[in-house]
Amino acid sequence: MFHFTVAPLALAGSLVYTVIAAPAPNSETWKNKALSPAERAEALLPTLEWTEKIAQLGVRQEQMQDGKVPYITVTDSVNSIYVPGGTLFPATLSLSTTWDLDLYCQVTEAIRDENMALGTHWVLSPELDVAKDPRYGRVGETYGEDVYLVGEFAAQYVRTMEEKDKNGFIKVATTVKHFLYGEGAGGINTASMAGGTNHLYNDLALPYIRVLKENPTSIMVSYSSIDRVPVSINKQLLQGMLRSEMGFEGLLMSDATAIPHLHTQSLVASSIKDAATKALRAGLQLELAPQQPAAFPSLVNSSDDHEIVRLVDEVVKQHLVIKFATGMFDLPLPTMSDLKKVLRSSKHLDVNRKASCESIVLLQNKNKFLPKPKISKVALLGPMADILNPGSYAPSTSEKPLHGRTLKGSLEAALGAQNVKYVKGVDITFVHESDSEGIQAAVAAAKEAGLTIVAVGSLSVYMLDPNAGERTDGEFFTHASLGFPGSQQQLLDAVLDSGVPTIVVLSGGQSFVLNNSTMRAEAILHTFLAGELTADSTVEIIQGKVNPSGKLTVTMPQAEGVLPVYYDFLPSDAQGGVSFIQTPSVCATYDYNFPCLKRGDAPMPFGYGLSYTTFDTSAPKITQKDGTVSISVTVTNTGSLAGKEVVQVYQRPTNSEIELPNKRLIRFEKVELKRGQSKVVNFSISKNDLGYYNNAKYQVESGEYIFWTGSSSKITDLKNATITL
Amino acid sequence: MFHFTVAPLALAGSLVYTVIAAPAPNSETWKNKALSPAERAEALLPTLEWTEKIAQLGVRQEQMQDGKVPYITVTDSVNSIYVPGGTLFPATLSLSTTWDLDLYCQVTEAIRDENMALGTHWVLSPELDVAKDPRYGRVGETYGEDVYLVGEFAAQYVRTMEEKDKNGFIKVATTVKHFLYGEGAGGINTASMAGGTNHLYNDLALPYIRVLKENPTSIMVSYSSIDRVPVSINKQLLQGMLRSEMGFEGLLMSDATAIPHLHTQSLVASSIKDAATKALRAGLQLELAPQQPAAFPSLVNSSDDHEIVRLVDEVVKQHLVIKFATGMFDLPLPTMSDLKKVLRSSKHLDVNRKASCESIVLLQNKNKFLPKPKISKVALLGPMADILNPGSYAPSTSEKPLHGRTLKGSLEAALGAQNVKYVKGVDITFVHESDSEGIQAAVAAAKEAGLTIVAVGSLSVYMLDPNAGERTDGEFFTHASLGFPGSQQQLLDAVLDSGVPTIVVLSGGQSFVLNNSTMRAEAILHTFLAGELTADSTVEIIQGKVNPSGKLTVTMPQAEGVLPVYYDFLPSDAQGGVSFIQTPSVCATYDYNFPCLKRGDAPMPFGYGLSYTTFDTSAPKITQKDGTVSISVTVTNTGSLAGKEVVQVYQRPTNSEIELPNKRLIRFEKVELKRGQSKVVNFSISKNDLGYYNNAKYQVESGEYIFWTGSSSKITDLKNATITL
Repeated sequence: MFHFTVAPLALAGSLVYTVIAAPAPNSETWKNKALSPAERAEALLPTLEWTEKIAQLGVRQEQMQDGKVPYITVTDSVNSIYVPGGTLFPATLSLSTTWDLDLYCQVTEAIRDENMALGTHWVLSPELDVAKDPRYGRVGETYGEDVYLVGEFAAQYVRTMEEKDKNGFIKVATTVKHFLYGEGAGGINTASMAGGTNHLYNDLALPYIRVLKENPTSIMVSYSSIDRVPVSINKQLLQGMLRSEMGFEGLLMSDATAIPHLHTQSLVASSIKDAATKALRAGLQLELAPQQPAAFPSLVNSSDDHEIVRLVDEVVKQHLVIKFATGMFDLPLPTMSDLKKVLRSSKHLDVNRKASCESIVLLQNKNKFLPKPKISKVALLGPMADILNPGSYAPSTSEKPLHGRTLKGSLEAALGAQNVKYVKGVDITFVHESDSEGIQAAVAAAKEAGLTIVAVGSLSVYMLDPNAGERTDGEFFTHASLGFPGSQQQLLDAVLDSGVPTIVVLSGGQSFVLNNSTMRAEAILHTFLAGELTADSTVEIIQGKVNPSGKLTVTMPQAEGVLPVYYDFLPSDAQGGVSFIQTPSVCATYDYNFPCLKRGDAPMPFGYGLSYTTFDTSAPKITQKDGTVSISVTVTNTGSLAGKEVVQVYQRPTNSEIELPNKRLIRFEKVELKRGQSKVVNFSISKNDLGYYNNAKYQVESGEYIFWTGSSSKITDLKNATITL
Repeated sequence: MFHFTVAPLALAGSLVYTVIAAPAPNSETWKNKALSPAERAEALLPTLEWTEKIAQLGVRQEQMQDGKVPYITVTDSVNSIYVPGGTLFPATLSLSTTWDLDLYCQVTEAIRDENMALGTHWVLSPELDVAKDPRYGRVGETYGEDVYLVGEFAAQYVRTMEEKDKNGFIKVATTVKHFLYGEGAGGINTASMAGGTNHLYNDLALPYIRVLKENPTSIMVSYSSIDRVPVSINKQLLQGMLRSEMGFEGLLMSDATAIPHLHTQSLVASSIKDAATKALRAGLQLELAPQQPAAFPSLVNSSDDHEIVRLVDEVVKQHLVIKFATGMFDLPLPTMSDLKKVLRSSKHLDVNRKASCESIVLLQNKNKFLPKPKISKVALLGPMADILNPGSYAPSTSEKPLHGRTLKGSLEAALGAQNVKYVKGVDITFVHESDSEGIQAAVAAAKEAGLTIVAVGSLSVYMLDPNAGERTDGEFFTHASLGFPGSQQQLLDAVLDSGVPTIVVLSGGQSFVLNNSTMRAEAILHTFLAGELTADSTVEIIQGKVNPSGKLTVTMPQAEGVLPVYYDFLPSDAQGGVSFIQTPSVCATYDYNFPCLKRGDAPMPFGYGLSYTTFDTSAPKITQKDGTVSISVTVTNTGSLAGKEVVQVYQRPTNSEIELPNKRLIRFEKVELKRGQSKVVNFSISKNDLGYYNNAKYQVESGEYIFWTGSSSKITDLKNATITL
């Protein structure tokens, strides 16, 4: 029990009332390390002044009073620590294309340990946004379009980051975000979503339900309005769904400036203070406020509002628990010697090299054009050739990176600078009168070399990067076109027109429309968002030193107009035609500006990716016992090189009470196979894992199920069998 | 009370049980014309056999038993009777662009009377789908993207169609459809929608709530799955929302083949019979089944299921009420003499001419290029120049129409055939090797004439039309591209490259992306879907005999990738940028393939349309009294020609409990003004009309409201004032 007295306090130039907590009898209890974080928080809370409490609600250090509560650094950390000098891994989307959870665990350990060495114990990851709209600028920060894969990768991240140290402290607290986001109107970060309970549960919330089993420290709520109620004040989602139904007990954080936006953007609050009050009442506990005006400081005037006071106490207790749990009251400061030992250790670089190699997706390889072990001369063309493109929350600079190489650097290192003729040709984004000259020079270089690598894509870098003006990807961006920005397509068209054999290397945290012109290229690789070793890995793949094994986690669309394009569409969404025109005889006459398309026919969907060898994946052998389904798949390397294949298992009940996706991923495993080798891969699936949410209740159909196994979500890459459960 | 006996009956080759109703004491009561339709239906029902009852549930005549119940013809009737020979009006979307409800009433009277003369007393219109996605192939059948305008036009239609004749019979029963549809995934007719109660009520259901005040006979449910539950079995929407909350008491009809689709497409029923049972239980009462297999006939085997028997009785009674109410039991057969008198009467043709003139929208008119009263010679180019493009549910043929003219015909009639050089140039959809020759010939004709009219667009015709193979618009189509199909853009580009002054005439039941190349045209007119006099009206507008006054009811998008593009987006949807890239300095360098766009900046949004004169619309003067807001607007013709302007009033509360559209249309009026003339237009708005649905409950905000008045929804075309209510 707390005892309050009320006293006037001058704050920020105005006379306000504040609540001063009368210290509890034993005011030193909170220092007792033998107590749990919750017990210590409980003990400390009554000793705090009202202004100290309010200061806990925001992350800007200058708003804090001096006091007994330490601050905790909360920082973005997507594919590296947030400052230069750490190991720069490929970004999240690239790591998901490895389809390798063990490898991802090692990557996460490295990022975690580098953060800890820096004294950072709370990060603003992982991002569970389900990448259902390729126009969304943050797809590169996600694990892709599939709820199961997103959930498994994110759970791995949270479990690894939040591992306890030898003292029992959480190593690095995580922030699972953005609850909920998937398809904002127009692919916009802050835009609204329609809602619908079955949609929210089955399409967006499933990864959260999975990750909550790992007990994450905090969740950041989405900017979006869902069914017209901004999530920052959406009690139904925050209290009903997330707290009551899904059982989340951690801290709820706003996205940056989201609370003031309630007043200034979505117009659902009459003032900043009104916004703060509504957000607090809905359940927000921490305001991410990199810019002024912040909203929660306005609550300092509400010390006579008993409900606010009660809510603030709850919130502050949650903050204190996190600070005790992460050791902020107890851990020593980080040391330079430890930092030097941990950052960029050889172990971290080894893991990075492996992750970089496995993340690159080979999309096209006509007549086994790749690998090319012996390249005597090559023209390296395009504006992404001498750029390191790591994503908007990475610390690297795009030019002359502190560590690692651009494709130009890697290629020159591998072949000798004299054998690489580099012509940028055009800018990434800017269109100039002189582009035709640049393109001519590029074509001339291509013809002279007899082999070209064209590096095209979209830029996603830190906002202070020298090339930031050419960004078209990352937070705050949406893709009104999924083609290549600027004059890049014209460059590519001209090179392909020349007939010189061409390898296209794509870069960007997004999928691209690859039109019929682009598809003329002999080979196409997608590198997504790079780590410091991605360019080296790309060259190793081109040379055949590495056999590519990445698989798409986002579907490549054939045209903007066919969105949405994710593989797990509802069966009836494929009826009535996505086609611009349906008559097949007419389709055949179309040029690539007006494709004849049908949903589900995307040639490069989720799960797709080529290898230099070939694999055969058998149909599933399915048995059941005691509520568990066992699936056995034989995968054989039928080609002439060692390689890795991702065995993918999809399923759905034949009929269901509500409409379910045409198929959904349920298990996957990456397998390494020598030439000619076969392996049997066994999957065990509890029948309970085959259910879905119907009106917020989880249910499992009894009856016939169909299981597919194969190398991608494309129906021609899958074999199936049924079983009655 | 009915008394049943059960007896075996051989039907369709199998032995089944059927219920034979024992006739009620006075079995002739239903013939009494003095009784109400409901009383007569109640009296007739017990005299029917089970198979007769089942036969009522479908519309295929051959499935019916001989019996005492007459059949009723139910037919599509969008812009004409459904067979050739009637007056062909512009299609629904074109009529909405008149923004003239009185005129629309006259059009509806004409279509109604022609249907009655033909003996048709039940039509499958109006379509209340809110055209939120320009990719939807049926936008031409809708009243556009705004819920208020859709509701007002549809209410006018239902009121006029269902007017009682001198005997008290409903003249023509209507079918309000498709409950609910607006933004199916990918713009596909049958595709799913996410749902969300606030979204459904405020974005899609409002027109239904308006139209239900007119007591329509029937409602057709949508193919869509809403929040994963197909509407055909969606009890929550059909029973909860439509029956209980919205009070609909009429008949609920399936869309064509929608019930079998529950089994074959959406996979939510284990058999056709299971589908029929689920649909009946959810509330469907009539199966539209132009193709086999139909589902409801399978219920004939369910005569021992008391629930089914009870539901079938309810359904059959509803059918009988409609047949009594429309006079099917009592009216004489139609006569040829009456038919000849009514079809294509001079009154109908006069109304049609007026509607055609008012429906055409002038989108661009550089330096008052139009009107051109004296055209000595013109090149008429493009594949839509000699086509009558009336929509997929119109009876006309696209070539050599029975009545009316194509643009070629109208232009030759106006200028003399020798002064019109027609070159088709390219096909509508097909792409040929020879296209470049066709384009060269077109450019040569343009240069020779010194003036060109280029007619481009997309075709929407009846499926048996000789050009049906070139359709890209209409039911079952979706637009994977919103550009012009085939080689039309190349034709247009070449003509514009030649520098010959160009008038572009658009045709198609859709909006198009007008890229920077197209925008070089001196003038652009959109004719949407044509009636028989649309081409004449187009020529009259070009010549200045008619001053154009149509206004868009669908926003013209600038790129596919910026969808959705409707004007009434939520405020926060415009934040964070629809832009492909946000930095203005970069935007300026973009070519038209990669536009720099921001939501709300569409240059041709809802409400937009030019005139040959200019108007000034004042800011609103707002007063309030007794719960009624009065808005006074002064509109002045400031140009040199007489003309018509649509005064548009938009509103929103400054703040609201849930996020509301940035603005919404609340009133409009089309005003005719001589040059220099001013008129004061007064609007009266009950405060109760300013509300919205929050979690299915209607509520009206108290506080400040902002009202805008002007000539389009574009913010630069509007003036505003606020009032506190």
